[in-house]
Amino acid sequence: MLIVMETSAPKKAIDNVCKLIEEMGLSAHPMPGAQRTAIGVTGNKSQIDSDRIMTQAGVREIIHVTKPYKLVSREFYPEPSVIEVGDVKIGGPEFIIMGGPCAVENREQTLIIAEAVSKAGAKVLRGGAYKPRTSPYSFQGLKEDGLKILAEARDKFGLKIVTEAIDTETIDLVSDYADIVQIGARNMQNYSLLKKAGRQKKAVLLKRGFAATVEELLMAAEYIMAEGNSKVILCERGVRTFADHTRNTLDLSAVPFVKRTSHLPIIVDPSHGTGRKEKVIPLSRAAIAVGADGLIIEVHHDPANALSDGPQSISPEMFEQLVHEMSTLAGVLGRTCG
Amino acid sequence: MLIVMETSAPKKAIDNVCKLIEEMGLSAHPMPGAQRTAIGVTGNKSQIDSDRIMTQAGVREIIHVTKPYKLVSREFYPEPSVIEVGDVKIGGPEFIIMGGPCAVENREQTLIIAEAVSKAGAKVLRGGAYKPRTSPYSFQGLKEDGLKILAEARDKFGLKIVTEAIDTETIDLVSDYADIVQIGARNMQNYSLLKKAGRQKKAVLLKRGFAATVEELLMAAEYIMAEGNSKVILCERGVRTFADHTRNTLDLSAVPFVKRTSHLPIIVDPSHGTGRKEKVIPLSRAAIAVGADGLIIEVHHDPANALSDGPQSISPEMFEQLVHEMSTLAGVLGRTCG
Amino acid sequence: MLIVMETSAPKKAIDNVCKLIEEMGLSAHPMPGAQRTAIGVTGNKSQIDSDRIMTQAGVREIIHVTKPYKLVSREFYPEPSVIEVGDVKIGGPEFIIMGGPCAVENREQTLIIAEAVSKAGAKVLRGGAYKPRTSPYSFQGLKEDGLKILAEARDKFGLKIVTEAIDTETIDLVSDYADIVQIGARNMQNYSLLKKAGRQKKAVLLKRGFAATVEELLMAAEYIMAEGNSKVILCERGVRTFADHTRNTLDLSAVPFVKRTSHLPIIVDPSHGTGRKEKVIPLSRAAIAVGADGLIIEVHHDPANALSDGPQSISPEMFEQLVHEMSTLAGVLGRTCG
Amino acid sequence: MLIVMETSAPKKAIDNVCKLIEEMGLSAHPMPGAQRTAIGVTGNKSQIDSDRIMTQAGVREIIHVTKPYKLVSREFYPEPSVIEVGDVKIGGPEFIIMGGPCAVENREQTLIIAEAVSKAGAKVLRGGAYKPRTSPYSFQGLKEDGLKILAEARDKFGLKIVTEAIDTETIDLVSDYADIVQIGARNMQNYSLLKKAGRQKKAVLLKRGFAATVEELLMAAEYIMAEGNSKVILCERGVRTFADHTRNTLDLSAVPFVKRTSHLPIIVDPSHGTGRKEKVIPLSRAAIAVGADGLIIEVHHDPANALSDGPQSISPEMFEQLVHEMSTLAGVLGRTCG
Repeated sequence: MLIVMETSAPKKAIDNVCKLIEEMGLSAHPMPGAQRTAIGVTGNKSQIDSDRIMTQAGVREIIHVTKPYKLVSREFYPEPSVIEVGDVKIGGPEFIIMGGPCAVENREQTLIIAEAVSKAGAKVLRGGAYKPRTSPYSFQGLKEDGLKILAEARDKFGLKIVTEAIDTETIDLVSDYADIVQIGARNMQNYSLLKKAGRQKKAVLLKRGFAATVEELLMAAEYIMAEGNSKVILCERGVRTFADHTRNTLDLSAVPFVKRTSHLPIIVDPSHGTGRKEKVIPLSRAAIAVGADGLIIEVHHDPANALSDGPQSISPEMFEQLVHEMSTLAGVLGRTCG
Repeated sequence: MLIVMETSAPKKAIDNVCKLIEEMGLSAHPMPGAQRTAIGVTGNKSQIDSDRIMTQAGVREIIHVTKPYKLVSREFYPEPSVIEVGDVKIGGPEFIIMGGPCAVENREQTLIIAEAVSKAGAKVLRGGAYKPRTSPYSFQGLKEDGLKILAEARDKFGLKIVTEAIDTETIDLVSDYADIVQIGARNMQNYSLLKKAGRQKKAVLLKRGFAATVEELLMAAEYIMAEGNSKVILCERGVRTFADHTRNTLDLSAVPFVKRTSHLPIIVDPSHGTGRKEKVIPLSRAAIAVGADGLIIEVHHDPANALSDGPQSISPEMFEQLVHEMSTLAGVLGRTCG
Repeated sequence: MLIVMETSAPKKAIDNVCKLIEEMGLSAHPMPGAQRTAIGVTGNKSQIDSDRIMTQAGVREIIHVTKPYKLVSREFYPEPSVIEVGDVKIGGPEFIIMGGPCAVENREQTLIIAEAVSKAGAKVLRGGAYKPRTSPYSFQGLKEDGLKILAEARDKFGLKIVTEAIDTETIDLVSDYADIVQIGARNMQNYSLLKKAGRQKKAVLLKRGFAATVEELLMAAEYIMAEGNSKVILCERGVRTFADHTRNTLDLSAVPFVKRTSHLPIIVDPSHGTGRKEKVIPLSRAAIAVGADGLIIEVHHDPANALSDGPQSISPEMFEQLVHEMSTLAGVLGRTCG
Repeated sequence: MLIVMETSAPKKAIDNVCKLIEEMGLSAHPMPGAQRTAIGVTGNKSQIDSDRIMTQAGVREIIHVTKPYKLVSREFYPEPSVIEVGDVKIGGPEFIIMGGPCAVENREQTLIIAEAVSKAGAKVLRGGAYKPRTSPYSFQGLKEDGLKILAEARDKFGLKIVTEAIDTETIDLVSDYADIVQIGARNMQNYSLLKKAGRQKKAVLLKRGFAATVEELLMAAEYIMAEGNSKVILCERGVRTFADHTRNTLDLSAVPFVKRTSHLPIIVDPSHGTGRKEKVIPLSRAAIAVGADGLIIEVHHDPANALSDGPQSISPEMFEQLVHEMSTLAGVLGRTCG
């Protein structure tokens, strides 16, 4: 940590800060400069709570050097984690594609789509039984009935299932049915939910919040890991910016940043990341090329009648085309797919 | 609603869309233009789920005219709502100041600060017993013990108390103690929590999310009102932007927008909105001047030892100064304060 | 400056960095920590060009302590600058209101509006003779004819005039007519234009770019001052964010930040800052309350027929009301107005 | 265009708006709805200047259907434009890589790098002779001497050269030497410069501004084309957001949006788009995969001593690796490269 003093800070203020640092069990290294003094701090094993220092007289700014995350950090686990969900391995050489409807609407719809994505080469079926919707008057999901339909689809087509948990009251039920429990973007900093996700045994797919930095995404994963569950898969799904040609701005640079900073796998959601079906395939190609470990894609056989997110859902035919393109690209990128 | 067709859309595609609209019980008004056809839609009482139309062949864009919120809308209740919390009235001529520590740290700290804010003229004591923190290793609050301390301070100094509920499991307990239940920025779209907030009886202070549009803030309030609780107070607390001279960018234009669009009161949080104590008073002046109904301010008698948010907490002396300035400004703005 | 090394950086890499720093005529202070080494650098008089260090083996991050601006800095000139434009003083106790049409459309329109704003109490007439427009097919201004009309209005009503210079070819002509030369948001980093603005003698009104940090605004002012012109007035006019209820997000916290960091005056443009006439007065109140030195406001007597920016222009009657409110607020804020 | 009236708008207000529209030579189609009336407008050949209508009594909102750009639009020219720069064709099946130093620093440096990029397979040499820098105290480029060095490198290695023009005074000189004249992000809305770029004969590389929407980028290209120069190459180089793990947020979804909306080619700049050399290759892979027509890359043989942008410059060895990877990917994407 580095403490930057005001240019006007008197020697006494500098001494006081140094004294406080020593009291905290750390070492202070004052560096008098031409304009001002900076004080280096060493001896800390984790990030120091700097608020106390910030409020001292004469302190202008605090600069953290040590990052606040531990368990998610590549400095902690130097090798990439491979998350095993049965025989599906996420974070290894295989590029994993998850596909399915935005929402489980009924048994027939889900089984049709599950069969299609399975045949096309998806390993995981996505589908929401609990749906967080901006409006209280929109369809909110089939709840446990939806989970049962997903479980049936899993058994029938040999897929794993990923589905969202939206609150602490229902996450245990979701966990009973799911292979991977999804935490959505709106809940990325719902810490009670993260803690419960960390106390159940299934893998967790954690989506980046609309306005979350990548560091905050990693800290949210740290909440899950700190409770004992290390099977966390991160997901870039676009952030909010002024740009209005897409629903969100997909931040693909998050992928190489996460790969360098953390050992956790990261996948990309180009359906929410763009909000328009005609951009799903181009951005999927970009995602595998930038180094992501997989995709999660909204697919609907009859988007005109989908109960949610029709405009960003691709057809089973486009999904087949997508898997085909991923497979070709995987071949020249040193990975496998499909 | 307006449906914009592709320039290349054939007559058949236009006819199909019109037919679908009629099937939905609405009226279609095709308007052939020089370049393309647009189709006006009338007859809807609430916002139409446009996803189904968006996926029809030849449709380029859908434009909504009817807004999705109802109960929060000023078109619904034309007069401003005044939220009564005992004898404290929020949204009326009086400008209400809430002050207190970020977190309830212990009995002594809370009582010292409560006494100071009460003497200075605050009507409501703020203080977190449950703290959502970015890091799992940071102080997470005193929980029910904190609520008890707040209740003691209320009784002792005749203040109302506002404190945050962070999950569905503890909101009922928080509601038992609090006069106003706060829903924080990170939980603005935690719909399970919003619904429970709508089913308890206390007033709710709903903070705008980091990256939420004002419309989304109103939709979150709609969730609470749809469950039967109409005592909702909105709060602007800054949004996330590229600007780095403050912790968040306080968006004061949200205040006149909310005032025009909704009947609900709105207050401002310049402590989180700027993140630096020296900006709290200037932005508080701006908040009352722009038309806000009150403020919520972090105050600490010993910020150097605060367990959270020390750098943005002002001293009791600064708080007294702040109330004094608000009172003077209220006088020329046709309001009362303090 | 602080250099943060990689955790894996060997001693040799640290030594090499220290050697390079000494070669640059500076002093290196290595601080070995539990996880990594940081190297403090002292002895610099201005910001060091850190790119060269950043590329050394083992360097993870560079943190600047010294700010890159000098002439604009309050550390350089501790007292607030008062910019004198004839008998109008910007940055002193008087709150200065500038008003007028977006564009000079014709002689009659400009004289009507000039008379109205003058009578209401404005000291400076705004009006564009050269208009930067998003579309090449929009009205681009009357050019020198417009400048002549402004000059006539100045003489007739005793106002100063502020008008925009959009390129290096015409700035000298603009400077001949204007009392204050405006550099617009789109040109805030047009350095050739800034340099020429620094070489002419009139005061400069420098608007913040759509996506400029406040530091970059100060650096743009540094360009002007470095050429010898110290009469720079800054202007906050809103930045671009995801928020869609206003045209831009007016960042009023920029005002106290500039006041603390720089000696230059800063005014606010709530017309562009919000884009809607009904928000101009509320945000003007907020601007004076937060500590701005003045306002620049778009006024039109017949907005329905304005050639540009009609929706954000207020009527002469609203402008009169605005000046009246500013004058009342100035009274309790220790300033004068009108 | 669609005009949305206030719910409270009386019949007279609606009639007035319709009358105005008819006066403008257009047709009005009032559509009375349950809550409010909307008025469709047809008959326009280009985007209507809606400000005049917006200011009518009772008008709440104006919604544009017709887009403001023409010449850049794919509706205007349905086939993709291929920009020919000698024998280099941008926008065709070949993926074009431009590489070189951020700034031309001296003859030796430029020739070393030019030779390296040429050998690796680049077709175009980049290098700035005029440098727009945030600080007036930073290196501003070698100016005409720099252009001469670039010309020598072109002759020696058979490369085309792309170099930036920063003002109207020097663009003709730059145009004399360059094969492609670059307009930088800071000047994307410097309309005087765009017009002059449209009046010279060389191809123009137009970079997206830090906070420009893709529509504004297309409108800036419209300025150039409206002056008669149709050889415009667009460039995505990242936008400004709250995300802080990269210097800018590279918005790759702009590529398929431009491809659908415009006939102009678009390339990607991952050096400025990320600001860190270790992210250049991953994002380059993403750029070719998403459908871009080429790349522009900063290369330096001795980044530790580069006068600008060292941290984002890759070495000649990394550049060779990059061209190799692009070539492999081009093979499976139906393109050629190198």
